[in-house]
Amino acid sequence: MPVSKDRLQLTFSERAELASCALARHLFGLMSEKETNLCVALDETDPERFMSLAAALGPEIAVLKTHVDTLEHFTGKMTVELATLAREHNFLIFEDRKFSDIGKTVRNQYTKGIFHIVEWADIVNAHAISGPGIVQGLREEVENYDMLDKRAVLLLAQMSSKDNLIDDDYTERVVKVAVENEDFVMGFIGAGASKVPLLASLAPPGFIIMSPGIKIGGGNDKLGQQYTSPETLVEAGADVLIVGSDIYNHASPLDQAQKYREICWEAYQARISEPKVARTKPDKKPTKNHAAKKTTP
Amino acid sequence: MPVSKDRLQLTFSERAELASCALARHLFGLMSEKETNLCVALDETDPERFMSLAAALGPEIAVLKTHVDTLEHFTGKMTVELATLAREHNFLIFEDRKFSDIGKTVRNQYTKGIFHIVEWADIVNAHAISGPGIVQGLREEVENYDMLDKRAVLLLAQMSSKDNLIDDDYTERVVKVAVENEDFVMGFIGAGASKVPLLASLAPPGFIIMSPGIKIGGGNDKLGQQYTSPETLVEAGADVLIVGSDIYNHASPLDQAQKYREICWEAYQARISEPKVARTKPDKKPTKNHAAKKTTP
Repeated sequence: MPVSKDRLQLTFSERAELASCALARHLFGLMSEKETNLCVALDETDPERFMSLAAALGPEIAVLKTHVDTLEHFTGKMTVELATLAREHNFLIFEDRKFSDIGKTVRNQYTKGIFHIVEWADIVNAHAISGPGIVQGLREEVENYDMLDKRAVLLLAQMSSKDNLIDDDYTERVVKVAVENEDFVMGFIGAGASKVPLLASLAPPGFIIMSPGIKIGGGNDKLGQQYTSPETLVEAGADVLIVGSDIYNHASPLDQAQKYREICWEAYQARISEPKVARTKPDKKPTKNHAAKKTTP
Repeated sequence: MPVSKDRLQLTFSERAELASCALARHLFGLMSEKETNLCVALDETDPERFMSLAAALGPEIAVLKTHVDTLEHFTGKMTVELATLAREHNFLIFEDRKFSDIGKTVRNQYTKGIFHIVEWADIVNAHAISGPGIVQGLREEVENYDMLDKRAVLLLAQMSSKDNLIDDDYTERVVKVAVENEDFVMGFIGAGASKVPLLASLAPPGFIIMSPGIKIGGGNDKLGQQYTSPETLVEAGADVLIVGSDIYNHASPLDQAQKYREICWEAYQARISEPKVARTKPDKKPTKNHAAKKTTP
């Protein structure tokens, strides 16, 4: 049996070729060229500070994660400005909407109202809890806008919050929904170094895993929240690392973002250059029932 | 052993006395006085039509369910107008936000941004998927506003959408989260006549069960969606019946709402007046581990 590489050994460029989703290919390419796999979670609710941080951090990041519904005094002008910054600095906008309703409702939430999310957010995420109809609903709107090559969804496969109701079986079912919609689902939200290995074993390599929960050097914060070092989380299988207040609340957000960018990128470089024992997972394009065939490592 | 009534035999007034949540008590009382257990899901995105429907249907309903993020050209004036209508016609506003993030984030989503949901929505709902921290996050904001007697959350215990990822074990864990937060969680969203009986067997009688999925006379729609008759769903355990497009898209929404109101209320009257064999469930105030002790009927 030939020794084949698994997702942890493949470069982002190699994985782009295995991705069925156009925006996943785009993000793999963007990360390779810009040499950053950092996502800043910009949970800043003051619009002026939000915009100035987006402008300052844009050159360092692959993805900017937003909660547009928490921005005070929102106007449509803000998302136009944000999209302009994204073009200028070559990052993707990820509205962390966590859609979780039925298909018919998420269609309206994605396209209507004050936010018109589909018009400016390259990426949105969704809980698959309501079933595959949620992905279908979002996809139909993207098709109406003729933007299937420019929009994609991340599914929440895991959560890190205490006593959350997601178990391994749920994670497996989420991966199945993704594989069945591989041209529109670009990847997953994973949850820290203890859980991401399971997700990485289930998710075909064309899917991107983004994960929060890191802190340079690891450790705990004042509230007892545990953090992993970027190196550990990347080694576990995370591709894009999501960092929030540790950057935007820092005395010098740009310096801190540059520090994270460097450490996260080096962790990725180390991961793809390490010699590893091949896993049992075949290095081929995912098929419809790929996830079901997987065994946990 | 004395024969005791279960939640299906108790009147709303009797159940108000068993509720630990002030807003649940208020809604039980409102329904008894106004003689309606109808909730209209007003998924209308045109703001003028939305407002005129809310004004016209207000006298018929107990609860108005909104998706404020789908309202075009939203301004804060709309929610002020809506709250005025709610006072005038004595109904509660239920923003169907389906919060599903971690506690820290839902706090901002509940109070900040363009919507300031906490200021005008009596009821919001949440997936317990991220764990009890989501309820805690919402509660802390309500406490900051000193409105614990005026605000409450409904947890999504079930969904009706095809191939959704909620199983019976998940439902049971949601009820546990509710029981542990019984002064702020007022009840549940259930899902149709086949699933609501399980929820009704798990949920202490002080909790209100709201459910969508009814149509007068039952049957299927053009897309194959199955509907239950109001009578069947009430008999299964639903207290508040959620009706959407079958009312607001009707040629005469007011006539249709009155028709639903009458049928749903009569179904409740029939339920509480029927002689029933007592269940094994004790007719007492829920305790912390009430849900865990339950067995399915």
